[in-house]
Amino acid sequence: MIGKSVTLADLPLRADLVGRSPYGAPQLDVPVQINTNENPFPPSPALVADLAASVGAAAVELNRYPDRDAVRLREQLAGYLSRATGVPLLTANLWAANGSNEILLQILQAFGGPGRRAMGFEPSYSMHPIIASGTQTDWVPFPRRADFTVDVDAAVAAIEEHAPDVLFVTSPNNPTGGSLTLDEVAALLQAAPGMVVVDEAYAEFSDQPSAVGLIDEFADRLLVVRTMSKAFAFAGGRLGYLAAAPAVVDALLLVRLPYHLSTLTQAAALAALRHGQETLASVAALVAERIRVQQALTEQGFSVVESDANFLLFGMFADASAAWQAYLDAGVLVRDMGIPGYLRTTIGTPADNDVFLAASAELAPVPDETLSNDTAPTTQELPA
Amino acid sequence: MIGKSVTLADLPLRADLVGRSPYGAPQLDVPVQINTNENPFPPSPALVADLAASVGAAAVELNRYPDRDAVRLREQLAGYLSRATGVPLLTANLWAANGSNEILLQILQAFGGPGRRAMGFEPSYSMHPIIASGTQTDWVPFPRRADFTVDVDAAVAAIEEHAPDVLFVTSPNNPTGGSLTLDEVAALLQAAPGMVVVDEAYAEFSDQPSAVGLIDEFADRLLVVRTMSKAFAFAGGRLGYLAAAPAVVDALLLVRLPYHLSTLTQAAALAALRHGQETLASVAALVAERIRVQQALTEQGFSVVESDANFLLFGMFADASAAWQAYLDAGVLVRDMGIPGYLRTTIGTPADNDVFLAASAELAPVPDETLSNDTAPTTQELPA
Repeated sequence: MIGKSVTLADLPLRADLVGRSPYGAPQLDVPVQINTNENPFPPSPALVADLAASVGAAAVELNRYPDRDAVRLREQLAGYLSRATGVPLLTANLWAANGSNEILLQILQAFGGPGRRAMGFEPSYSMHPIIASGTQTDWVPFPRRADFTVDVDAAVAAIEEHAPDVLFVTSPNNPTGGSLTLDEVAALLQAAPGMVVVDEAYAEFSDQPSAVGLIDEFADRLLVVRTMSKAFAFAGGRLGYLAAAPAVVDALLLVRLPYHLSTLTQAAALAALRHGQETLASVAALVAERIRVQQALTEQGFSVVESDANFLLFGMFADASAAWQAYLDAGVLVRDMGIPGYLRTTIGTPADNDVFLAASAELAPVPDETLSNDTAPTTQELPA
Repeated sequence: MIGKSVTLADLPLRADLVGRSPYGAPQLDVPVQINTNENPFPPSPALVADLAASVGAAAVELNRYPDRDAVRLREQLAGYLSRATGVPLLTANLWAANGSNEILLQILQAFGGPGRRAMGFEPSYSMHPIIASGTQTDWVPFPRRADFTVDVDAAVAAIEEHAPDVLFVTSPNNPTGGSLTLDEVAALLQAAPGMVVVDEAYAEFSDQPSAVGLIDEFADRLLVVRTMSKAFAFAGGRLGYLAAAPAVVDALLLVRLPYHLSTLTQAAALAALRHGQETLASVAALVAERIRVQQALTEQGFSVVESDANFLLFGMFADASAAWQAYLDAGVLVRDMGIPGYLRTTIGTPADNDVFLAASAELAPVPDETLSNDTAPTTQELPA
């Protein structure tokens, strides 16, 4: 290997990156992986066969650049989202990229940047402030209540005070799980002086109506971001998308890297959309499991945050990182989001969830009334 | 459709984007497409079959996120580049992304940005200043000589004067075609106070040794960017990569979007690398065609810039955009790069090149000595 003599400290890195670590959950090979809110159900054999055939058919022209504007894919995404929300969307309302992260990056490149500020309700999806930082957009965090809901009146006041150029509204919120009502989203939109990104990565798991229904009313500011990673079980395919007014999509075309979305990604995502109905059948199963896991955790003595996504935030742990390690030792990879006392678990298969719940039983908080008589290890005594 | 009432002018777009048009060559459906330096030879049936099977095998786990660090792919890219250059590279020396554009974006996010400046020798790849602008990096253009070569002594003086944080060296240079020698690249590296990106998108078509051979000596500043779009005929697959010291790769990990490279892209690129030897056989054929086309254009009276890539810059046209339209009317899509008097043609299949040369014969500059006696239309008289 060459170049070993140089270290990161020798390089003229941007000052704001010095001392940082790369983002990302640990990718560990353990039996039960419920740490990144993946859909535990693999694609159907019919989808895999269609996808392989579609990609093979597209590959005969792989020497040519892809359709830069991904027109067919956006047309089919518009069809799906129209059916899901009842809102008449056309190709010009849709945009697609390599995961919703790239969509968020393009939004901040177009509407954020140096001298501008973005705001979000924390704790929330940690990529929002990271991508803001990556585009030199100032970040204004506004705290959620202790129960992780948004105090909308206080949020409106904060929006009026800070006048964010870009406001992030995550619904359902990751990593806490709750949604805002459409009226609450509308109140935030009404107050916002800049662009408002409603991040609906987990929308298919929720009973709340989509903010897509507000685009026509707030056409000059609303962007609804979605992903195929979760309900569509397409995390490995990397397909994020967005619905907005056509002019908003035109703005993103000014900053997108040309040919950002490969021919293969476009063909594979079209195949996944063709099989959408069978894939989305997993949503009901996962919601049922979420209810079961939430009840079981509650019975074990945990406090579980209300969720309408495919994950649960639960506690309280005296030492959440020690509890994370104890789960790992039991073959269960959950997520420590850095929220004191809490961990996040993704809803897995019923078998995954059983293993998780068995491990949880060992880690359950000791009820107050038995604490004095109980000699079983408490969370305080877990290995560090 | 919803949201039609809003126009781009209604949106709070960043000031530097106002009035811009999206980047990109026209994607027109004409018989001879020789405008984007694609490899005209499609992937072999064996590669297509392997790719479809590999993607199908990977797709059974598409509900899971991809390997965030693309380790197997980087290992195989290291193997290819080691064999091609004779330099011992390992996985830690390589990085990969969705096309070299994304690599360039990550480089400027890590080492450019507000308050920093990048320099390039123009005319060159137009995405360099565009991505610099997208990351708020100041752009300092330094002109090439009239024959499009770089005056290295003058360039060294300009580097010392402007002290760019990031220097772009494109070799072979797009859209002009010529390469720098390794000594010339080393002289620029010696002078550069910041990072130096040697963009070798067309390296496989060139006789010049790769700058990869200089990485060990200039480990604290050299990044060599490559792509599978050209020689590997993988433009639709979107796979750019980079070789550098491991610490430089570590720096890019700080800014890359997590899971930026899909499972499908990783599987497809691995398949393309397995069939690299058969694909790269097209390089010799394209170089032979480039020599034939260059000779024919010269005989037709054109001035052709010396090239060791898969394209030729040629002129002089009195009105290059009128000539571009005349080619299009003849079913030939070439590229108008905005260089007065010149057009760029990609080397296509022998049949593509024959059609191109037949159209060129109609547009050839009238030799000086016959001008007074010749009543045939000159380029001045072409339709606008």
